[in-house]
Amino acid sequence: MDLFEAIEKRSSYRLEYKDSAVPREDLSKIMQAGLDAPSGCNKQTTSLICVDDKELLKELLGMIDPPICQTAPAIICVLTQRICAYRDKCFAVQDYSAAIENMLLAIKALGYESCWYEGHITDDDNIGGKLAKRLGVPDDYDLVCLLPVGVAKCEPSHTSKKPFTDRAWFNGFMNE
Amino acid sequence: MDLFEAIEKRSSYRLEYKDSAVPREDLSKIMQAGLDAPSGCNKQTTSLICVDDKELLKELLGMIDPPICQTAPAIICVLTQRICAYRDKCFAVQDYSAAIENMLLAIKALGYESCWYEGHITDDDNIGGKLAKRLGVPDDYDLVCLLPVGVAKCEPSHTSKKPFTDRAWFNGFMNE
Repeated sequence: MDLFEAIEKRSSYRLEYKDSAVPREDLSKIMQAGLDAPSGCNKQTTSLICVDDKELLKELLGMIDPPICQTAPAIICVLTQRICAYRDKCFAVQDYSAAIENMLLAIKALGYESCWYEGHITDDDNIGGKLAKRLGVPDDYDLVCLLPVGVAKCEPSHTSKKPFTDRAWFNGFMNE
Repeated sequence: MDLFEAIEKRSSYRLEYKDSAVPREDLSKIMQAGLDAPSGCNKQTTSLICVDDKELLKELLGMIDPPICQTAPAIICVLTQRICAYRDKCFAVQDYSAAIENMLLAIKALGYESCWYEGHITDDDNIGGKLAKRLGVPDDYDLVCLLPVGVAKCEPSHTSKKPFTDRAWFNGFMNE
């Protein structure tokens, strides 16, 4: 799929998925897109665990309250290491966000839907920490985001956004 | 350009640019790609100012020490509003990082090069703040990143990265 088509068509899908598995080849291609994103001083602070084992997936999704992604045939868990790029500067959030955006575009281009679930699993009830423990993730990694991957059962919808001229200008703030 | 080709070919270009202007049509398309990125609770915390006026660009680039982007015919300044998406949760960094990644891919797909310059302009000497002031940016926005846009004069090179199996696994940490 053309880059601009993927960017324009991507949207956050929170509805049901069809009960069809996602081939490992596609999942690997999506994860590789994430790993190809840039990172501050090339520290590569982002790692990924894809869960497509039915039993394990059911167990993990059962730990999320209120529930999300319950019908997704696969999820990608995004891990981050909060290490400094230089001095006291840490770009881990920037790094994993760029990786997530690449993966969202890759998911769309391959015919699947997804949604960036971060707030829900990094809230005070620490769902991300519980999922990480079950997946054997060491303490120096944080599990910060879940991306479901699957074929949409319903029609994806688009969130409306502010017009270009409210957010982008040439040669000065609010100019042109 | 195909999405995966753009993702694979994108790299951080820190060398000289050719002295050829970037058409407004391309700059707008790049900025629109940035605005199309998702944002936490659709708060759209990211705004953009593209500088392609030669005099203004020269003045702004002269404020950056040590110098960067000195031969770029255009730069895109990334602004963020650090507002909460819900309760005390702010996803402004995630929002602008996803927007930047979209723009880096768009820049590559249209035949230009770029580089994510963030640390240098957000360091303690506050270069971003000085650029923002010159551009008339209000205090509730932070200028956090510069993206040069231009045709490469030299051959872009690729940073080497860890292999897939060091950073991505299935169904468990370091699994498979």
